[in-house]
Amino acid sequence: MIKIVVAGFKGRMGATATKMVIEHERFELVGVLDPHAQEKNLSEISDYQELNVPVFKEKETLVKSVVADAWIDFTIPKVAYENTYFALENKIAPVVGTTGFTEEQVASLIKLSKAQKTGGLIAPNFAIGAVLMMEFATKAVQYFPDVEIIELHHDNKLDAPSGTAVKTAEMMEEVRAKKAQGNPDEKETIKGARGADYEGMRIHSVRLPGLIAHQQVQFGGTGEGLTIRHDSYDRASFMSGVALGCEKVVELKELVYGLENLL
Amino acid sequence: MIKIVVAGFKGRMGATATKMVIEHERFELVGVLDPHAQEKNLSEISDYQELNVPVFKEKETLVKSVVADAWIDFTIPKVAYENTYFALENKIAPVVGTTGFTEEQVASLIKLSKAQKTGGLIAPNFAIGAVLMMEFATKAVQYFPDVEIIELHHDNKLDAPSGTAVKTAEMMEEVRAKKAQGNPDEKETIKGARGADYEGMRIHSVRLPGLIAHQQVQFGGTGEGLTIRHDSYDRASFMSGVALGCEKVVELKELVYGLENLL
Amino acid sequence: MIKIVVAGFKGRMGATATKMVIEHERFELVGVLDPHAQEKNLSEISDYQELNVPVFKEKETLVKSVVADAWIDFTIPKVAYENTYFALENKIAPVVGTTGFTEEQVASLIKLSKAQKTGGLIAPNFAIGAVLMMEFATKAVQYFPDVEIIELHHDNKLDAPSGTAVKTAEMMEEVRAKKAQGNPDEKETIKGARGADYEGMRIHSVRLPGLIAHQQVQFGGTGEGLTIRHDSYDRASFMSGVALGCEKVVELKELVYGLENLL
Amino acid sequence: MIKIVVAGFKGRMGATATKMVIEHERFELVGVLDPHAQEKNLSEISDYQELNVPVFKEKETLVKSVVADAWIDFTIPKVAYENTYFALENKIAPVVGTTGFTEEQVASLIKLSKAQKTGGLIAPNFAIGAVLMMEFATKAVQYFPDVEIIELHHDNKLDAPSGTAVKTAEMMEEVRAKKAQGNPDEKETIKGARGADYEGMRIHSVRLPGLIAHQQVQFGGTGEGLTIRHDSYDRASFMSGVALGCEKVVELKELVYGLENLL
Repeated sequence: MIKIVVAGFKGRMGATATKMVIEHERFELVGVLDPHAQEKNLSEISDYQELNVPVFKEKETLVKSVVADAWIDFTIPKVAYENTYFALENKIAPVVGTTGFTEEQVASLIKLSKAQKTGGLIAPNFAIGAVLMMEFATKAVQYFPDVEIIELHHDNKLDAPSGTAVKTAEMMEEVRAKKAQGNPDEKETIKGARGADYEGMRIHSVRLPGLIAHQQVQFGGTGEGLTIRHDSYDRASFMSGVALGCEKVVELKELVYGLENLL
Repeated sequence: MIKIVVAGFKGRMGATATKMVIEHERFELVGVLDPHAQEKNLSEISDYQELNVPVFKEKETLVKSVVADAWIDFTIPKVAYENTYFALENKIAPVVGTTGFTEEQVASLIKLSKAQKTGGLIAPNFAIGAVLMMEFATKAVQYFPDVEIIELHHDNKLDAPSGTAVKTAEMMEEVRAKKAQGNPDEKETIKGARGADYEGMRIHSVRLPGLIAHQQVQFGGTGEGLTIRHDSYDRASFMSGVALGCEKVVELKELVYGLENLL
Repeated sequence: MIKIVVAGFKGRMGATATKMVIEHERFELVGVLDPHAQEKNLSEISDYQELNVPVFKEKETLVKSVVADAWIDFTIPKVAYENTYFALENKIAPVVGTTGFTEEQVASLIKLSKAQKTGGLIAPNFAIGAVLMMEFATKAVQYFPDVEIIELHHDNKLDAPSGTAVKTAEMMEEVRAKKAQGNPDEKETIKGARGADYEGMRIHSVRLPGLIAHQQVQFGGTGEGLTIRHDSYDRASFMSGVALGCEKVVELKELVYGLENLL
Repeated sequence: MIKIVVAGFKGRMGATATKMVIEHERFELVGVLDPHAQEKNLSEISDYQELNVPVFKEKETLVKSVVADAWIDFTIPKVAYENTYFALENKIAPVVGTTGFTEEQVASLIKLSKAQKTGGLIAPNFAIGAVLMMEFATKAVQYFPDVEIIELHHDNKLDAPSGTAVKTAEMMEEVRAKKAQGNPDEKETIKGARGADYEGMRIHSVRLPGLIAHQQVQFGGTGEGLTIRHDSYDRASFMSGVALGCEKVVELKELVYGLENLL
């Protein structure tokens, strides 16, 4: 059994992670942390009446009271760096989903983790399927430089293309033979038809009610096509990645950045 | 058996139509017409050695020599109008795939067809699947005004969006509740990501080697999606529509425009 | 404004319908009915504190207290028939989503509705997208008798094929040219590969975690393909159909069976 | 420039390979071999009038007349082994698409290649997209043990499931956590609905006119899905793999089996 604490358990992602740890057969929840918590024990929450898990408002109190192997962190950027540093100092392996770390911060945390011989993971995206999609796309583009991305989201989304689409294009661009997709003489009779141009690759952003978060990376070659598609239906999809992270970090001797490095 | 002549049989579409008529069990090929023909009889062509079908260079000679029920026409715009007029005068029902008729020409042909009590069909698109896709889209958009079109073609194609995509959007626009698709505050961080804007509907044009001609009309509503997709793999797909046209026109008493009016 | 009552408002579907009516700009919720209700007024429920909608435990009390145009019914089969009969007697147009009506019951309700000159709708499926999918499939199969159904659901589902898949196949069978799909000499090297055989049409049932409820009806012809797909992401998708039903029934003079008859 | 000979150039695949070599900018066609050839030189064939490439009926004559780096072989199983052996003896790197080699034959050819320090490739499948699909599926199944395969082919195909589908399932089975896909209590109300069962993974075979050769490997996890799809539209798709093989084998010092080992 891996002993785990969850920081930021009152937030949406933190609450989902707490539930995942409780239900996971190889994990034991030994404590939760949140400065906004009113409870002293998780048993005060109606869904968790039969549990006995202490609630902490300060990390210093937590480490004095419980012994943990892994530290799941879904807090805010300002807090997350401090928490991750603190976890490593205490030889608890952090699994961090908060975004917004600077390169310097990541570098200093990796350095500390090595000194402490403690594993850890910072991941901007915990959906295993999305991470695999990007990895496969980066491999395929080496053989099929002709590629377009179609990403489809609900129509509340404000930015187009999506962050994942841009990230995928960036990763492909590093290994792709330079090439402008489409016919050199093609013409748009209505502006925008051919989508966004990212280094010669085209990205199309579909926005419709009902949709959740979907992305299709489509490759073409002589007489054939290869398509890699990820469908995200629910925030719960992130939790498989968080669980995988917890299982892996306790065997590592340093912190890594990006779930792809554990796959 | 329906007796059929094919005009423009030396062209690519005409040759395919000739082959279809020969192989169709309810059709009899009674003559073919082409000013560029060198042959006197189809039997001079190696694939058709066992046939006995006269070849004509002039339409006047043809009607004196053979009796026909239907006249398939895949010629050039200039000739097609004359041919269609001539077929109707001779009470042969025309099935015309040549594009480029003016509205006046169509009107005058319909008038003549009524006077002659002779059926006929002029169709810019003979792919039954594509015609059904457009018909279904026009129905669905009345219940799902949120719609985007993704059309995908080989990367030799010059124009974007495709003619079929624009035609589909035009047909939907006539019955669709006015609405701009997407979030009112959405922002393109890379220009063109949200595709072409046709009266609030978005059209995305994908161009990749290997692809042939594909179109997906995608609707979204609260908690659900509806997608209608047509894949065209081969020019032969047009021939089901031509065959259907021949079977229907011999029962009509006037000329109609658009295959959708026979479905 | 259409004045509406909801019967069975404590159930899952009834609660969703209640919410829909409250939020719909052309509807006014005038009362709710449920024998299990503890409340006297919806305002006792935390989400609805600002409303003033009386709660009834008996239908007889309801009709004495409020005037309604439409009666949404998501109760249990035994109760639904009585309720629908009662609504028609009181000239309130019923919109009924409860399943399990016998043919005799439907016939007697239609007869009553005509006598009362009151509209109504009984629909086993309120997802407009699913109903359109079935309607389009029934049209397309007349031109493309080669068809297979792929339905995809979460892996908690017990029955295969799904009810919607069988219903779709039944509807297509009535108008489809008899034909066994696939090669007459085809062989399954692993049993079941070619799916379920329904009158020559093949049905394939995919079950995977993460999926919700999806169905693809795929047609093939010479050189082309036509695919109609419905994706259901959320139970809320039914409510567009319920809303449409309420708007239509108040203009009808008799009860109809099946949402397709209102599209 | 890589100097290449093509054995079996009168066959369908051999002819396509010959064309590919002629058109490829980094390849030079130095000779072609076929016991059925009537020509002495490719220039006798109308499409190749401007070329000067000698035609051979016997391999012994060929190696005396021309110097080659690579030997493309699309012959029949009986001949292919002899040819591959002969090419290696002459230090010409073979690229072999003929199927039907026994394990012993492959082993002996690898041994010979090492002794000769000559590269080579025997590949049952040269479609790079299909090979990548299988590779990606084998990776993904380690994180998503819930998987089903949908393969779709034209309705002339006799066997179901396809060879590629079975091969994909075999490869996944080696690394997949044992698990029966679907609900333990699921019931087929029509036999075959849940498809073929291969070690707990389900395979569905769709057969429709118009389709060519397509395969979709679909994974499901909590709240997400990952799909890898390959579409083969044309036999020409194999030629990218043959070309890649020619470029790689001249740098190898031994023969490898399977295109995946060069990707």
